[in-house]
Amino acid sequence: MLSPLERAFYPGSIAVIGASSKPGSLSYQLIHNLVLYGYKGSIYPVNPKAASVYSIPAYPSITTIKNNVDLAVLMVPKEMVLDTVDECNKKNIQSIVVITAGFKETGEEGAEREAALLKKIRKYKMRLIGPNCMGIINTHPEVKMNCTFVQGTPLGGGIGFISQSGALGAAVLRTVQQNDIGLAQFISIGNKADVSGNTVLEYWWHNDDIKVITLYLESFGNPRHFMELTREITKTKPIIAIKSARTKAGMKAASSHTGALASSDAVVDAFIEQSGVIRVNTTDEMFDIAKAFDMANLPEGNRIGILTNAGGPAILAVDECANWGLSVPELTAKTKNKLKKITPPEGSLHNPVDVLPPANADVYSSAAKIMLEDENIDSLIVIVGPPLMLDTLEIAKSICRAVKDTKKTVMLVMMSQDDVIPRLKEVMPVHPPVYRFPEYAARAISRMYNYKKWKERPEGIYREFDADRKTVRKIIQKYSAKKGTYLNSEDVSTVLKAYGLPIINSVFTHNTFDLIQISDKIKYPVVLKAVGKKLVHKSDMGGVEVDIHNTDELIRAAEKITEKLKFHKAEHLLEKFMIQPYVQGGVETILGITSDNKAGHLVMFGLGGIFVEVFKDVNFKLVPVNDVEAASMIRSIKSYEMLKGVRGKKAVNLDYIAEAILRLSQLSRDFPEFMEIDLNPFVFFDEKEKCSILDARIRV
Amino acid sequence: MLSPLERAFYPGSIAVIGASSKPGSLSYQLIHNLVLYGYKGSIYPVNPKAASVYSIPAYPSITTIKNNVDLAVLMVPKEMVLDTVDECNKKNIQSIVVITAGFKETGEEGAEREAALLKKIRKYKMRLIGPNCMGIINTHPEVKMNCTFVQGTPLGGGIGFISQSGALGAAVLRTVQQNDIGLAQFISIGNKADVSGNTVLEYWWHNDDIKVITLYLESFGNPRHFMELTREITKTKPIIAIKSARTKAGMKAASSHTGALASSDAVVDAFIEQSGVIRVNTTDEMFDIAKAFDMANLPEGNRIGILTNAGGPAILAVDECANWGLSVPELTAKTKNKLKKITPPEGSLHNPVDVLPPANADVYSSAAKIMLEDENIDSLIVIVGPPLMLDTLEIAKSICRAVKDTKKTVMLVMMSQDDVIPRLKEVMPVHPPVYRFPEYAARAISRMYNYKKWKERPEGIYREFDADRKTVRKIIQKYSAKKGTYLNSEDVSTVLKAYGLPIINSVFTHNTFDLIQISDKIKYPVVLKAVGKKLVHKSDMGGVEVDIHNTDELIRAAEKITEKLKFHKAEHLLEKFMIQPYVQGGVETILGITSDNKAGHLVMFGLGGIFVEVFKDVNFKLVPVNDVEAASMIRSIKSYEMLKGVRGKKAVNLDYIAEAILRLSQLSRDFPEFMEIDLNPFVFFDEKEKCSILDARIRV
Repeated sequence: MLSPLERAFYPGSIAVIGASSKPGSLSYQLIHNLVLYGYKGSIYPVNPKAASVYSIPAYPSITTIKNNVDLAVLMVPKEMVLDTVDECNKKNIQSIVVITAGFKETGEEGAEREAALLKKIRKYKMRLIGPNCMGIINTHPEVKMNCTFVQGTPLGGGIGFISQSGALGAAVLRTVQQNDIGLAQFISIGNKADVSGNTVLEYWWHNDDIKVITLYLESFGNPRHFMELTREITKTKPIIAIKSARTKAGMKAASSHTGALASSDAVVDAFIEQSGVIRVNTTDEMFDIAKAFDMANLPEGNRIGILTNAGGPAILAVDECANWGLSVPELTAKTKNKLKKITPPEGSLHNPVDVLPPANADVYSSAAKIMLEDENIDSLIVIVGPPLMLDTLEIAKSICRAVKDTKKTVMLVMMSQDDVIPRLKEVMPVHPPVYRFPEYAARAISRMYNYKKWKERPEGIYREFDADRKTVRKIIQKYSAKKGTYLNSEDVSTVLKAYGLPIINSVFTHNTFDLIQISDKIKYPVVLKAVGKKLVHKSDMGGVEVDIHNTDELIRAAEKITEKLKFHKAEHLLEKFMIQPYVQGGVETILGITSDNKAGHLVMFGLGGIFVEVFKDVNFKLVPVNDVEAASMIRSIKSYEMLKGVRGKKAVNLDYIAEAILRLSQLSRDFPEFMEIDLNPFVFFDEKEKCSILDARIRV
Repeated sequence: MLSPLERAFYPGSIAVIGASSKPGSLSYQLIHNLVLYGYKGSIYPVNPKAASVYSIPAYPSITTIKNNVDLAVLMVPKEMVLDTVDECNKKNIQSIVVITAGFKETGEEGAEREAALLKKIRKYKMRLIGPNCMGIINTHPEVKMNCTFVQGTPLGGGIGFISQSGALGAAVLRTVQQNDIGLAQFISIGNKADVSGNTVLEYWWHNDDIKVITLYLESFGNPRHFMELTREITKTKPIIAIKSARTKAGMKAASSHTGALASSDAVVDAFIEQSGVIRVNTTDEMFDIAKAFDMANLPEGNRIGILTNAGGPAILAVDECANWGLSVPELTAKTKNKLKKITPPEGSLHNPVDVLPPANADVYSSAAKIMLEDENIDSLIVIVGPPLMLDTLEIAKSICRAVKDTKKTVMLVMMSQDDVIPRLKEVMPVHPPVYRFPEYAARAISRMYNYKKWKERPEGIYREFDADRKTVRKIIQKYSAKKGTYLNSEDVSTVLKAYGLPIINSVFTHNTFDLIQISDKIKYPVVLKAVGKKLVHKSDMGGVEVDIHNTDELIRAAEKITEKLKFHKAEHLLEKFMIQPYVQGGVETILGITSDNKAGHLVMFGLGGIFVEVFKDVNFKLVPVNDVEAASMIRSIKSYEMLKGVRGKKAVNLDYIAEAILRLSQLSRDFPEFMEIDLNPFVFFDEKEKCSILDARIRV
C-alpha cells in the first residue's frame, strides 16, 4: 500500500474541493492545469452549487462521490477547512493538500486555526501538504499531474523541487521550458504544518523518479534532522539548496513573513556543509547545476576539454574553470594528430580546441568524439558561438548524437541561442545540459566534481576515547541548582582532564612568601602571572613574567610584577599570583562548544588571537563530529596556512588538533548540559606532550 | 567636419566592397541587415561581377561610384585588402571597416600583412576598424545602421558596447531584444590594428548618444592610457568592463588567441579600481548593470524600499541588498498610514511592503507612488510575482506610469515573466529597467550607488613633498653601468632620506672591541643583530638581542649572540654586527614599488609578516598616486582592521601611512629608473617620529 504522501504524488483520482466554475479563479485554473497537462486519473470537482466545473461533473460534497478518492485538494474558504477535513475522513481520504491561505502566516487567529487543523490531521492519520501552498506536480508519464494553479507547462526530467515560497516556485515553473529544466516532481510546502521539507526529502530519497533534489527554504524546522537526513541522502542523490534570509536584514523579513525564526547563518553554513548539500544563492544557479546532475554524467576528475568555434567564449570558460579549481590540460599528441585532420590550419589544436566559426555539424561532432577519447580529460564543454549562416540546431543535434554513449561529462553551450534550446528538446529529448554562456557550464561541472569527491570521501568514524564520565557527572550534579553559571577553575580542570583534554596545571599563591615553598614542587621553566578580576590587560601592565628557571628568578619576577603594577597604579587589583609551566612557541587556537536553540550543540575551531578576534575566522560543526569532519574543520579556516609552518615556525601536527576536536565533541555529546565551553588559547605543537590548553571556561 | 571615426558611426553612405549576391554569404547578410534595420543613408555594393546585390545597383569598383562615400566596409579576400585601401584613398574615403580575417590572429604572415595595412592607413590619414572584426552599429533614429552580419535586431537605448571578441559581441547582439538592452552604438574592434578600445572610449566620452559604456576586453594595448582616460570618463559616464583571461590558465588561452600578452590580474585590478571602472565577470552581469544606468536615475543614497506581492522574492532581495551594503529601512509612519488604506489586512506595511498576490494595477501603482514619497528611501524595487490570473502587463504599465516623474531610482522585477519584457518595451518605450529575479535588481542598484560615491569622491591631489632630487640623480648616475643591481645600504639610506622616508640608522661593526667606541655615539635603547649573507634565520639562532640600554649590556649582548651562534654551529656565518635603535610595538607594514612592462610602475602596500607572506594581502596602484587613492589603498587591504588598534594595541595614525605612500609614489614618478623598491618592514605608530623603515632594498 502506498503511504499517504506517496499517494499524494501518484493519485489515481483527485477531488478538488471548492472548485469554482468561474474562469479566472484559482480553482478553475487548477482544474484547467490538471486537464491540459493530461492527468491520467479522474478529477472530481466538489461544489454544492454547480452541476459541472470545466465540463466535468461536479459533486455537492465529498461524501457524495461514489468512487475512491486518493487525494483531496482543498480550496474552500478558510473557515470551512476544518469541517472539510472531517468530511475527507469520512470518505477515507488520507492525502490532503490545503491551498487555502489564512493560517499561521496571518497572525494569532490563523495560528490557532492551523493548530486545530494539524490536530485533526494527526487524529485521522492523514498527511497534509500546506496550508497556504500552491500544490504539487508529478510529470511521470503515467501520472501527468500538474496540480497547481500556475501558468506554464512542466517539462519532464529527474529534478525534484521543494519550495517554501509559493511565488518563487511559481516563478521557476514558468521558466522550466525556456531553460530546459526537467522536473520529476514539485511540491509547494506552504506553512508546512505537517509535511515539511524533511518529510519530502525522506520520501524522495528512495523514489527512483528523482535524480537530484532542489530546495528553496526560508527557515529550518528541525535543522539537526535536516543535517542527519541529507547527509545520508547525498550519498546517493545530490541536493542543491537556496537557504534565503541569510543576512540579518533578510532574517527580519523572513520572520515577519513566515513567523519562523531563522537560524543564524554561520550555523546554517555549518550544517549545510556537514550534510554535503550544495548551497547556492540564486534560482538561476540552482537549476543550472540541477540540470547538469539530471542530464550529464558525474565527472571522474577535474580535467576539462573545451571545444569552441570562437576564442572569446573559450577564454571565459577557461577563466571560470580555473576559478573553481578545474584544470584545462594539454591534449595528447594522438588527439592533436586526429584533430589536425579536421581543423582548419588557423584553428587551434591546444585545449581549448578552436575549430573556427565556419565549423559545421560534421566538424563539431568529429572533434567532440576525438576529444572525448583523450585520456587527459574527464569532461568536455562544447561551445557553439552565435550562428552566422549555419543552422546551429543541426550542429547541436550532431553533437548530441556524437556524445550519446560517452561515460564522460559533456556540457553544451549554445551562446545566447535561447531559441535553439526548446527546439533541441523536441527533436532530441535526451541531450547534454545546454547553457547560454560558458561560465555557467564550467560552474556546474565544478559543483558536480565537488559532489563526486563528497560522495567518495571516507565515511568518517565517531572515535570513542576513554573518558571518566562518572567524575564529570558528579560535577554536573554539584551545579544542578546553579544553571547558567560557570564552573570554577578546579572543576574545569577536572572535566577537561576526564576527557583527555590537556589543560595546563596552574598553581595559585597569595603572597611572595608562599612562592618559595611552592618552588620545590614545580617543574621549571614557568610563567608567573598577576591574577585579579579587574586586571584585564595584565600583559600591558607588566603583569606577566615568562621563562623563569629557578626560585631566585621566581621571587625576582614576583617583585618585578608588583613594582610594575605599582607604577601603573594597579597594585590593588592584584588578587593572587598564578604559576604555570612556560609554554613557548606553538600555534594558538581556540576550540569551543556553543549551542543553537534549534540546531543544538556545535563545535567551533579557529586560530587564536587576531584570527578569531579581528577576522572571526572560525568553523562550526554540529556535535557529534567524526574524524573526516574534524579534518575538514581544520582545513576550512582561511588561516589554515598558519598551521603548516610559516616564517620559520614548525608545522603543527594536525592530528593532535583533530583529536582534540573529537574529544571535545565526545564530551559535548555525553554531557549536553554544558552549554558553552571555551578552550582559549589551546596551543598546538608538533609534539603531542607540548600541546596544552592555557585557559578554559565552561558554563552549565 | 566629422572626424573619420565619427563618420564611421554616422555615415551618410556606405560602400560594401566585396559584396556578394549569394544569399547566405557574410556580405549578403550584412547588406540584408543594413536594409532591414532601415539604414537612412545610401548603400553602394561593390562587386566587379554583379550588376546588383540585394536589388541594389552594384559598382565594379569604388572609384566608379559617382557620389560621395563616407564609410567603406571591406569584405574582400585578405590578399586584396591592401589594394582596396589604395582605391579607397583615391575615392577620398577616410573611414574603413575591415571585416576580412587572416591578419595578426593567424600568425607571422598575417601579422606582416596587418603591419603593411596599418602603414597605409597612417599614410592616408584614415581610421581603420578591424581587421578581423564584425562591424559596427548605430541605432540613432537618424542613422539606423546595423552594419554587422549578425542575426538579430538591435534595440535603441543609451548603451555603448565595445567588444574585442566577435563571438561574444554577436552573442550579446542576439539577446538584446529578449533582455531589453538598449544599445546606442556597438563596435567590434577585432585585431584593433588602428582603432583600439581606448580610441573608441575617447570618442564616446563626448558623444551625447552614449549614456553608459560597456567593454569586453581580453588584453590591454596601453593600460596606463586606459586608466588615465577612463578615470576622466567615469566622472561623467559609467564604464562597465569584463576583462577576461583573469587567471593564469585563462591568460594562456588569451595569448594563443590574440597574440596579445595579458597583464597579470593584480595589476589589472589595480588600475581598473583606480579608474572607477566597474569590473564584472559575466556578460549577463554587465548588461544587467548597464541597463540600470541607462534606464534608471542614480540613487541618492543606499536606502532601498521594496514593494512586493510575495514574501519569498522579497527576502531574496533583502538578502542581496544586505550583501552589497544597501539598507532596507523602516518606512515613516505617514507612509504606513497611507499604505494601510490600500493594502489588505494580511499584507505587510513594513519594508518590504507586501500587497499580497491579488494586488492589481491600481494597488501597485498607488503603493509605488506612496513609497517613492517616503523620505526614508532612495530607491524602490517593485517585485511582481508570477501571474495567476491577472494580466501583469497591465500591472507593469501602471507601475511605469506611476514612477515616471520620480527622481529616485526604480527597478521593476517581473518574476520570470520573460514574455512581458519585450511587450512592455513596445507599449512603454521608456520604462524602468526590468529584471527576472530580484537579486539582479539589488545588485544593479548597489553598483549604481558605488558609482555615485565614486563620482562624488574628492578629486584627490598629487601632493608634492620637498625632495633632494640632485642627490638621488647622482646616485643613479653612479649605477648607470650596473643596470639591474641593488643599491648598497648607504645609498638606499640616502635615496630614502632624500624623499623624507624614515629609514632607520644602522651602524655596523666587525668586532666586539669596536662596540665600546661606537657606544658613545649611539642613542639607547638599541637592538644588536648578527649579520651575514647566509644567516637567514638569525632570530631562531639567537642572533638578535633587543632592548639594550648601555655599553655593558651591549657588550654582553654581543657575547651572548656569539655564544648562541657557536651553539648552533653557525659562528662562521657571522660577518658583522648591526646596531639599530630599538623600535618596539607599532604595526609592521610593507611598502614597495614594482613595475609591469605594460602598465609601468606601481606602488604596493600591505601589512607585513604573515599578512604579506601567507595571505598575500596587498594592494597595488599605478604611480603617481594621489591622496584619495593612498587612503583607499590603506582601506582596501583585508587586514585593514589591524591598523585600527586591536588586542590592546594603539591604533596607527593612517595619515602617516598615506604620506609614506605618497612620498614613495613621488620618488618613483621622479625616478622611474628604480625598478623595484622594497621597504619591509616599515613600522607605523600613532606618533610620527616613531614610524620607521627597518629594512629596505632598491634595484635600478
